Amino acid sequence: MNFTNRQVLLAARPLGFPKESDFKIEDSPVPPLLQGEVLIRVIFLSVDPYMRGRMSAAKSYAKPVEIGEVMTGGAVGVIVASESDTFPIGTYVVGDLGWQQFAIRNPAQLRRFDPSLAPLSTSLGVLGMTGLTAYFGLLDIGQLKDGETVLVSGAAGAVGSIVGQIAKLKSCRVVGIAGTDHKVDFLLKELGFDAAFNYKSTKDYTAKLEQLCPSGIDVYFDNVGGEITDAAIPLLNIHARIPVCGQISQYNLEKPELAPRWMHQLIIKRAKVHGFLISDFAAQFPKALSDLAAWYKAGKLKFPEQIAEGGIDAAPAAFIGMLHGENLGKQLVRISSSEV
Amino acid sequence: MNFTNRQVLLAARPLGFPKESDFKIEDSPVPPLLQGEVLIRVIFLSVDPYMRGRMSAAKSYAKPVEIGEVMTGGAVGVIVASESDTFPIGTYVVGDLGWQQFAIRNPAQLRRFDPSLAPLSTSLGVLGMTGLTAYFGLLDIGQLKDGETVLVSGAAGAVGSIVGQIAKLKSCRVVGIAGTDHKVDFLLKELGFDAAFNYKSTKDYTAKLEQLCPSGIDVYFDNVGGEITDAAIPLLNIHARIPVCGQISQYNLEKPELAPRWMHQLIIKRAKVHGFLISDFAAQFPKALSDLAAWYKAGKLKFPEQIAEGGIDAAPAAFIGMLHGENLGKQLVRISSSEV
Repeated sequence: MNFTNRQVLLAARPLGFPKESDFKIEDSPVPPLLQGEVLIRVIFLSVDPYMRGRMSAAKSYAKPVEIGEVMTGGAVGVIVASESDTFPIGTYVVGDLGWQQFAIRNPAQLRRFDPSLAPLSTSLGVLGMTGLTAYFGLLDIGQLKDGETVLVSGAAGAVGSIVGQIAKLKSCRVVGIAGTDHKVDFLLKELGFDAAFNYKSTKDYTAKLEQLCPSGIDVYFDNVGGEITDAAIPLLNIHARIPVCGQISQYNLEKPELAPRWMHQLIIKRAKVHGFLISDFAAQFPKALSDLAAWYKAGKLKFPEQIAEGGIDAAPAAFIGMLHGENLGKQLVRISSSEV
Repeated sequence: MNFTNRQVLLAARPLGFPKESDFKIEDSPVPPLLQGEVLIRVIFLSVDPYMRGRMSAAKSYAKPVEIGEVMTGGAVGVIVASESDTFPIGTYVVGDLGWQQFAIRNPAQLRRFDPSLAPLSTSLGVLGMTGLTAYFGLLDIGQLKDGETVLVSGAAGAVGSIVGQIAKLKSCRVVGIAGTDHKVDFLLKELGFDAAFNYKSTKDYTAKLEQLCPSGIDVYFDNVGGEITDAAIPLLNIHARIPVCGQISQYNLEKPELAPRWMHQLIIKRAKVHGFLISDFAAQFPKALSDLAAWYKAGKLKFPEQIAEGGIDAAPAAFIGMLHGENLGKQLVRISSSEV
């Protein structure tokens, strides 16, 4: 079989918010497989805030995508050609498959996914990196205890929406922050948040947080950063924890935002601010996925997702929209049909 | 016996750096003891950065000193009158005795100190709250591991000078930051720091830290805050820890200092910023004091101290001088003779 592979390459390093012209779409033939390799037809691509970091040359935890390289990204797909004995044609797999229609990988880079257990897209969400990020960020880094007050920024995003639901499973008071009234409604009515507000239409964050968190904040699960953080920190309770999952408000700034220093407040509250990456917890993924799957099957963990149609060509716009907060829940791009 | 008690009262809440006129010195008679109480003649008073917080009305972890009240402060003294069976005259005791010549306390508020084991002043320093702060901040909050690189701000201060020495005992590379060349010399020649620099005469903190911490920073023990922090954070290693012990650079500002946000860098480094107060570790003080005493007796832990003479009247100037960094090591005020 000869396949043509349509790929999204990084064309330019963005200044501020990425634009479509920072990407380039190209077709190329799929090369032959080497011994042990598999060819995957990508079905869903996940677009996530961390990818903005990979577009920059700045030193970070992973090396940047080079100009002209295929954009990196988690995806789920099905094996359509195989030189591997253990990963035959028809196997559904999850991994960093990149922004493209077809990926060649070694099985060691892949995780199997059984689509009879849950919809394919959950492999990138509640039963994938998104769910794991919420789980370890809240329960391990955040050391959540039953009955605490949890504040979640980016609460209607992929990770935030799961964070809030896990906190509800732990009998916590959950307060969410989102960027549209529709998202706020969704958090309150569909996901069971105790309170939520639209940060774009709220002027005084301090007053709002004082009103919604009358017993203070025990865990501030931060996906966003910026002025919300400045308002949340004085309301932290003694021994509060801030798992730092993302800082999406800062990723597209052309120069660093200035803010009042608040480290002295961490002393008063004996509070902890702790950045994390999910890769550090790889050894504990099986237990976490088992918990997440049980909650999901029991209907206790809803997984909002938004799927951009239009194939690989739709990926740049879906990514840019996600950075602007246009998604509710997980933003995916449908690259090809789920059918084998 | 009739005693007159000379006390330092808070006269005004300072704006910016405290001045001597923010304090008032008054004499008053010592009231009679109630059943169970003891009268303590104060010998050494400790003046520490945290006291600046107690002078402000702002909400903090302890209630502020009210205008007209005796300033709060740790001190060591000897019992000169007793209505307690267990704490007789002649017992040396440590506790929050306040800025005054005589204090009436209940034994439950006091800790005994045996002056045959170590000089009396060590009860406020290496074998007291100062030593305990360094110990738990570095080993528990900082989770120090042998051979790591430790950066200490306020390194020639009471806590910092002990932090650096404990880190050397753990085979770490220790880099200190201080505010005079004399202090820098002291850190290098007397306390065995591997490197140190004078932040007042250093222009480019980033370049200096890169030079002195070629393997990055694993623990940044922060007593000071401010611009040093901005320079240290990008040099943190993966899984670095920042025990936040003090932020003396911020305590006397009339309005909050603005700085570039850096929380996103905590994600990249999976780093932890953790404020602490030593009171949270009270249950573990005996083990820590035993370690500190063993190191001290073995000559492995030097305890620099500076004693202001002039009695209780000298306390305000000693405190203000300490806030300006005039002390090398622990700043004490001699209130009365060590002899019984």
